[in-house]
Amino acid sequence: MAPVTGLGEEMHALVERLYPLCRSITGDGVRATLDIVGEYVPLQVHEVPTGTQVLDWTVPQEWNIRDAYVADAAGNRVVDFAASSLHVLGYSVPVAATMPLSELRGHLHTLPDHPVWVPYRTSYYTPDWGFCLSQETLDGLPDGDYEVRIDSTLADGHLTYAEHVVPGQVADEVIVSCHVCHPALANDNMAGVAVATYLARELAERSPYYTYRFIYAPGTIGAITWLARNAERIERVKHGLVLACAGDRGRLTYKQSRRGDAEIDRVLRHVLRTSERPHDVVEFTPYGYDERQYCSPGFDLGVGSLSRTPYAGYPEYHTSADNPDFVSPEALADTLAVCREAFAVLDRNRRYVNLSPYGEPQLGRRGLYESLGGRSDAKQAQMAMLWVLSLSDGEHGLLDVAERSGLPFDAVAAAADALCGAGLIKA
Amino acid sequence: MAPVTGLGEEMHALVERLYPLCRSITGDGVRATLDIVGEYVPLQVHEVPTGTQVLDWTVPQEWNIRDAYVADAAGNRVVDFAASSLHVLGYSVPVAATMPLSELRGHLHTLPDHPVWVPYRTSYYTPDWGFCLSQETLDGLPDGDYEVRIDSTLADGHLTYAEHVVPGQVADEVIVSCHVCHPALANDNMAGVAVATYLARELAERSPYYTYRFIYAPGTIGAITWLARNAERIERVKHGLVLACAGDRGRLTYKQSRRGDAEIDRVLRHVLRTSERPHDVVEFTPYGYDERQYCSPGFDLGVGSLSRTPYAGYPEYHTSADNPDFVSPEALADTLAVCREAFAVLDRNRRYVNLSPYGEPQLGRRGLYESLGGRSDAKQAQMAMLWVLSLSDGEHGLLDVAERSGLPFDAVAAAADALCGAGLIKA
Amino acid sequence: MAPVTGLGEEMHALVERLYPLCRSITGDGVRATLDIVGEYVPLQVHEVPTGTQVLDWTVPQEWNIRDAYVADAAGNRVVDFAASSLHVLGYSVPVAATMPLSELRGHLHTLPDHPVWVPYRTSYYTPDWGFCLSQETLDGLPDGDYEVRIDSTLADGHLTYAEHVVPGQVADEVIVSCHVCHPALANDNMAGVAVATYLARELAERSPYYTYRFIYAPGTIGAITWLARNAERIERVKHGLVLACAGDRGRLTYKQSRRGDAEIDRVLRHVLRTSERPHDVVEFTPYGYDERQYCSPGFDLGVGSLSRTPYAGYPEYHTSADNPDFVSPEALADTLAVCREAFAVLDRNRRYVNLSPYGEPQLGRRGLYESLGGRSDAKQAQMAMLWVLSLSDGEHGLLDVAERSGLPFDAVAAAADALCGAGLIKA
Repeated sequence: MAPVTGLGEEMHALVERLYPLCRSITGDGVRATLDIVGEYVPLQVHEVPTGTQVLDWTVPQEWNIRDAYVADAAGNRVVDFAASSLHVLGYSVPVAATMPLSELRGHLHTLPDHPVWVPYRTSYYTPDWGFCLSQETLDGLPDGDYEVRIDSTLADGHLTYAEHVVPGQVADEVIVSCHVCHPALANDNMAGVAVATYLARELAERSPYYTYRFIYAPGTIGAITWLARNAERIERVKHGLVLACAGDRGRLTYKQSRRGDAEIDRVLRHVLRTSERPHDVVEFTPYGYDERQYCSPGFDLGVGSLSRTPYAGYPEYHTSADNPDFVSPEALADTLAVCREAFAVLDRNRRYVNLSPYGEPQLGRRGLYESLGGRSDAKQAQMAMLWVLSLSDGEHGLLDVAERSGLPFDAVAAAADALCGAGLIKA
Repeated sequence: MAPVTGLGEEMHALVERLYPLCRSITGDGVRATLDIVGEYVPLQVHEVPTGTQVLDWTVPQEWNIRDAYVADAAGNRVVDFAASSLHVLGYSVPVAATMPLSELRGHLHTLPDHPVWVPYRTSYYTPDWGFCLSQETLDGLPDGDYEVRIDSTLADGHLTYAEHVVPGQVADEVIVSCHVCHPALANDNMAGVAVATYLARELAERSPYYTYRFIYAPGTIGAITWLARNAERIERVKHGLVLACAGDRGRLTYKQSRRGDAEIDRVLRHVLRTSERPHDVVEFTPYGYDERQYCSPGFDLGVGSLSRTPYAGYPEYHTSADNPDFVSPEALADTLAVCREAFAVLDRNRRYVNLSPYGEPQLGRRGLYESLGGRSDAKQAQMAMLWVLSLSDGEHGLLDVAERSGLPFDAVAAAADALCGAGLIKA
Repeated sequence: MAPVTGLGEEMHALVERLYPLCRSITGDGVRATLDIVGEYVPLQVHEVPTGTQVLDWTVPQEWNIRDAYVADAAGNRVVDFAASSLHVLGYSVPVAATMPLSELRGHLHTLPDHPVWVPYRTSYYTPDWGFCLSQETLDGLPDGDYEVRIDSTLADGHLTYAEHVVPGQVADEVIVSCHVCHPALANDNMAGVAVATYLARELAERSPYYTYRFIYAPGTIGAITWLARNAERIERVKHGLVLACAGDRGRLTYKQSRRGDAEIDRVLRHVLRTSERPHDVVEFTPYGYDERQYCSPGFDLGVGSLSRTPYAGYPEYHTSADNPDFVSPEALADTLAVCREAFAVLDRNRRYVNLSPYGEPQLGRRGLYESLGGRSDAKQAQMAMLWVLSLSDGEHGLLDVAERSGLPFDAVAAAADALCGAGLIKA
């Protein structure tokens, strides 16, 4: 794992700041989240009206909530939304009633196996209401009547998502997507939001080859909305990465695209393997985060997903234990570093054509050997030139050269630059 | 291995009943065999005249035999066809002579390594005569003259084979082929005949997708005759299985088609692997049973071969020790079960097209989640639906889905049914 | 390793004879080398004028040298070209001067890690002069003035290479290439020259299918010159082998062509594997010997490289320790044997078409079984016939048959001959 850097601490601070907001797939919590992210990178925010048809789905009513609690007979709030947005079942319809505990129990969600944790639950598409609390709290509740109140609204409004674009030399795009619908959960997915945001800032300084589009959207319905509204753009999306669960202390996990051999898959496998980080590369499954949508068979985009401990792979997943302490600055910095390295390779992975393909061109005559004179890596640089010449047949890209030669990608890319400069290859 | 069932005992009884008949590549022994099989499933019997050109071959003269023996000077039959049809070299020309043992020896076949067993020998295409006996019997024969008599006829007649067809929903066919030319040998191949026959009975109750054609024919020349007479049908034969040595107590062996990646190969590999039966999958070789003919390069059909211990792989092979005791009801039932499972997969292995391929369709809206409500395998069923949707691109069949997802084929097929019912995919 | 044969000793004698000549990429040393080789096989010698454009290169001035030494104040030659042609930096410009050791040091090359060995150094394309000597010799030189003299000429002349052709039944060619530019080094590459020469003699006695062209040329510039002058021939070059470092006592190394799946690659892998010789098969790299040129992407010929210890893989490489003692007759004979076996397979690896592909043809009727009657390998010969029939679909060659069946290539080829003779297959 990369050493702690200022960036890790900065990203962790952003996670902490975003963490408490009550997000859902619509509503002011998402807007507040995007307002904060917008302080770091400029965002184009989109508001899509309730009822808009998006692919097979329809944008739902907007949900907002001001207060919610369960109070005992003495008026003490024994479950209180003000303490954590997890306490309310997401998309709960409004309720104001008094009922005995026996009746209330059907609306209470706990985690008996983790008695001090509060679960995260939602009911987006089936009208319902409920509270989430720890088993310990539940066990401490005496029988009797409780006042139940959820001051929420479900009304026509909008679904909100945002984009940030880092313009590139070409119109072909790389998308980086992260979900912004989960309330008080840190790793899932304010960690992904933080890494995406800092990645965007770095890319802007790099004048990248590709245009990089960062998508901050609620899970599932948000990605579907983006896809529905960007039909004409899809063919320009050449690569993509979903960032989720990006900050826990576990090893890195790269989940490949549905295609399995997309360039992004090859790049991530290469970077993870050659960096010698502990990691897992897993096959695509149609479950997880928004890669499900980007990789649906009609689109079948080359979009993979980078996480640390993967989807649902840790006990803290979707519980109050996924709090800012569960996320470490070192892990955030490490995930950011992998993204940085991967996009550096992706951005530079061009195919060249050898313009002097019959026999080896005379490198010495062109000063290409001499240019290596004093370098400690002169031999490697020479081998990289020979490999680039050998494989520049229009079929192989620089990543192919790096993989087949065993040379570092950077050395291969530098050789390509030198050969391009000497007029021996062209992109 | 599957538990003993009534079916295993029934098949074993059929093996015992068929066992003693004196079969050869032509003649009344084959007809008697088919008469008995015809009591279990209706057969269409074909009689092909001697001299008929079949591919590179010619239907030979028909061979029939009434009696045969070697008698000592006292008139005692020391080798007697009446005791076992193995005692006569198959296709022996008639002989009636008396000769000293020294001269007779050149016509006697034994197994010195297994002195109490009688070998099985034939001379179909080179006129010859001979007797097969145990080494012990031979060793006990005193010198002197012996009466030798084979009351056989070789005359113009017919080659006999039979078919049983289980009609399907489509005209595309699956052939199941078993050789019926071996005399008193149980595993090779009355066991194959019995499994094929009971399989045919089961399929008829199932209203299968494919049309299933069962071929009962003498080895080599019978399959060649069938192929020669069914030239116009061949293109409808999509899959096939040769059943041989189907009842011994050894582990299952699936020999792949010449193509090696035919659908039948994938199905058998899948079923054997997922059923966790001990088994071997072996490559095609141009030696063995009638897969040799079906897989000859001009036809190159997707026909594999299912056996237990494979061709020539057990010492009892082609000897009197391959008797009904060598075949077990359990093994017969297990082979039948594998065929049943394999054809269930094959029959159901359709490719679908996702009609809502852009993003995931909203399953909840269509009640597809609710329908899973109380099921213990609800999560598996949901995953199966997502996988079928993901891979229904016209390229992948349900077996592909099962293999890639790791889900049981049945769960995948059920998901396809549900999605079909909801109008989300179509075949 | 093959037992020592007379051939091994003969080849070693040729290495010893060629060893001391002062070869370079041009000049009389190359001509003298080719004169000697010409005593063994007739050579067509080509002289290409200085300044000729060859692909991306230009034929350089011709270098010749008569004498060279470093002499101490007493006139003793402390470094003397007459003792070994290694002592002069290859392509040294002429020099006649007296200078202190301190100034001379910049022109002296040693191997500090191997203090008694003399290194081999050249400066073909950068004008320079220098001497190579052992570290021990250098350490023994007192300070003071030294007379330095290199009596060399660099002048317009020619680059010399030679060809020997063994005519075949077809115009398609196999090239065998060895570099002849290294001075007093035995394994690199007089061993390759010796093996190539004896291979050529053997092939001439065999009336091969392919036309075999042996190329004796200086490294890099020689192969480039040959390629430049044979543009119209290239499409007839179907296979090729570079022979280098062919006589040391290490295990065999086959370096595959750039294509990696060229027929020559498959043949060498097969022969090395089935002969059970210790060996390595390595991937192509664009470094090494003249496979670099033949496999450059514009040509991309199916040319591999056979060595014992590979390029630069032994400490004696490019030093005075690569002398005739470093090369063994057994190793030379073994390398020759592998070439002989490989070219026998290559030469015989034809694709056939089964003329009777529907079902098996009746082999017995054609006497093909009977012909095997008494042979101890009758079963193998029968299997070989069945395999050749099965795979003769125009897609598979005899090497495919051998690899898939596990039968010896010779048995497969004999079966193909028999089937051809019976009119069952045709090439």
